[in-house]
Amino acid sequence: MKNFSFHNSVNIVFGKGQISKLNSLIDKKSKVMMLYGGGSIKKNGVYDQVMTALKDHQVIEFSGIEPNPVYETLMKAVEIIRQEKVDFLLAVGGGSVLDGTKFISSAVNFKGYTWDIMSKNAPLTEPTLPIGTVLTLPATGSEMNANFVVTNKDTQEKLGMNKPEVLPQFSILDPEAIYSLPERQISNGIVDSFIHTTEQYLTYPDHGYLQDRQAEGILKTLVEIGPKYLNDKTNYDLASNFMWCATNALNGLIGVGVPQDWVTHMIGHELTAFYGVDHGQSLAVVLPGVLEVKRAEKAAKLVQYAERVWGIQEEDENKKIDLAIQKTIDFFESLGVKTRLSDYGINSDKFNDIKSRFERRGMTAIGERGTFTPDDVVKVLELRQ
Amino acid sequence: MKNFSFHNSVNIVFGKGQISKLNSLIDKKSKVMMLYGGGSIKKNGVYDQVMTALKDHQVIEFSGIEPNPVYETLMKAVEIIRQEKVDFLLAVGGGSVLDGTKFISSAVNFKGYTWDIMSKNAPLTEPTLPIGTVLTLPATGSEMNANFVVTNKDTQEKLGMNKPEVLPQFSILDPEAIYSLPERQISNGIVDSFIHTTEQYLTYPDHGYLQDRQAEGILKTLVEIGPKYLNDKTNYDLASNFMWCATNALNGLIGVGVPQDWVTHMIGHELTAFYGVDHGQSLAVVLPGVLEVKRAEKAAKLVQYAERVWGIQEEDENKKIDLAIQKTIDFFESLGVKTRLSDYGINSDKFNDIKSRFERRGMTAIGERGTFTPDDVVKVLELRQ
Repeated sequence: MKNFSFHNSVNIVFGKGQISKLNSLIDKKSKVMMLYGGGSIKKNGVYDQVMTALKDHQVIEFSGIEPNPVYETLMKAVEIIRQEKVDFLLAVGGGSVLDGTKFISSAVNFKGYTWDIMSKNAPLTEPTLPIGTVLTLPATGSEMNANFVVTNKDTQEKLGMNKPEVLPQFSILDPEAIYSLPERQISNGIVDSFIHTTEQYLTYPDHGYLQDRQAEGILKTLVEIGPKYLNDKTNYDLASNFMWCATNALNGLIGVGVPQDWVTHMIGHELTAFYGVDHGQSLAVVLPGVLEVKRAEKAAKLVQYAERVWGIQEEDENKKIDLAIQKTIDFFESLGVKTRLSDYGINSDKFNDIKSRFERRGMTAIGERGTFTPDDVVKVLELRQ
Repeated sequence: MKNFSFHNSVNIVFGKGQISKLNSLIDKKSKVMMLYGGGSIKKNGVYDQVMTALKDHQVIEFSGIEPNPVYETLMKAVEIIRQEKVDFLLAVGGGSVLDGTKFISSAVNFKGYTWDIMSKNAPLTEPTLPIGTVLTLPATGSEMNANFVVTNKDTQEKLGMNKPEVLPQFSILDPEAIYSLPERQISNGIVDSFIHTTEQYLTYPDHGYLQDRQAEGILKTLVEIGPKYLNDKTNYDLASNFMWCATNALNGLIGVGVPQDWVTHMIGHELTAFYGVDHGQSLAVVLPGVLEVKRAEKAAKLVQYAERVWGIQEEDENKKIDLAIQKTIDFFESLGVKTRLSDYGINSDKFNDIKSRFERRGMTAIGERGTFTPDDVVKVLELRQ
């Protein structure tokens, strides 16, 4: 096991009716900006619950944060915050709203060109704004981590960042708030949570016995509840477990002290950038290919995954791995998430452009062993046609 | 799943060589009191590592915090802290040192009779002192929770408390710091961690699917590494997993949103109080009896435990539960922890005194369903003779 630090101070407030606690969670002296996306929260009742809870607070609203939040949009919020002297940010939505709010928090008092926060990992020497969240879409784990991804249309970049200064103070997770999600967002969220877990688990054994068990626990729970939840979207217990799995998949705990991969995410991001495929869809396409291309290096963990997550009893190691990869594909398909590039109308035209992007960015020796090359990117894409 | 909040801000600093980080973890302007127990840290090198790390700090020492820390001892530290204007407490030791330090932190600025903090759950309206810890004995989870247990010799009370105000700021977990532990402390620590987990798991199913998997992960890891570690006490990876299991068993995570029992601990405390049996030993004696007496109410979880933790394939449900309880006993015995009252020279003379204690304290309807009575206490003890 490697040395690590684990420090996650987010106050998770979980359960039905908990949105009402906003009233006491945010200081009444604060001037609050409530940030949200396209208005789904006005249809599902969350907007009204938030407003009722904050009736004694001074609140201004900022809506229109898009999926894959855009720098230019977020900077509009920054301008308003500076003018209005807002001192608390309440993000109400899914990963995009939460990520955008983290960028806004970091940018408000930043001296200099704010895109440098993303492109140059510029240090946050000035105070950030405190953040609270009300989660309406389980997937990214943004409610309990300090990660955020922002897109800049001018420079055609989509960049990720991690700044401990923007970790939310609290996050409210009310499973009833996700009842009205469209099926596609649920499926994508389950796949995203599953693959956040495999990125920290399907590597090589490094004596993280407990971390392995914790990761397998998330995977098994998602396998158990995923398809059931899609057929029973107002089942409180299934919604609760989906939500709590998504948070635990990327709050740092399962990744402490163990090797991590993240190649599937890196390739997936390019599929989203080039073709506009949903993030969850892109991961479902790529993961089986990464496991296939790196099956020798990942063999020990793939065997463990086959046995412990899928209960595969096969003697032959190679067959065991084949079955585990096939079970993974079948699971994604059972959620309605297609797993081949052709399912999304993607051909091989841009495989070399994607490869070049990895080369240009110096991402030439990635993955848990630093052995995954731009040529491997093409191999993965070819396998997933 | 029940509503819950989870808020644990302890900064865990894990791994070999990490004690040196004390230098930057504690503000150089602080006046530090280093608190420890009987001096084992002077033999195993931890004392020297701490002093080297704090060579630029102003440090005074307070030693002699006993196992099951005593109020009178702790109040001596409180007096010194008040006189010397100490403003940071560094606890170096196991659960007793950490628990004692938490009480001291809560008592320093307390206005009134300080035992009221324990006996009356008196609110901490004045500031507590910040705490850091260097853990040398994995067992209680005190390094990542706000629990503390203190004994008052005058009133013959041993009382537990939980005050979020005394949660450590940071805890350093260096697996090499436990290499020289006596076998009995290791065995007790493994049993303690195991039973902290079962208290939050062996209840009734309440749709905490992920929490169940997380609890099973701790149990399976302890089963896997426990006996191995006893035979290989300087194995870094086994020490790491033992340490990290103990922390995760009682940092709050596995208990969120699910029913909890804690009857085994309540009865065990009395065995320690009456006979001076080690805490871990007392739990190993009591748990099998509690599972037997409440086997009907706990049946669903006991079956799940049999299958998932012990891999028991038996068809008959009752036999399956029998086997699971026997496997549990065998595990404790394999660690050298005896599981019968007679092993500790205890007969039935005081069974009724113990029962009376439960009655006098109003602990007449305890356990996860509130159905465990003082008569059940006697039944458990009779079964474990």
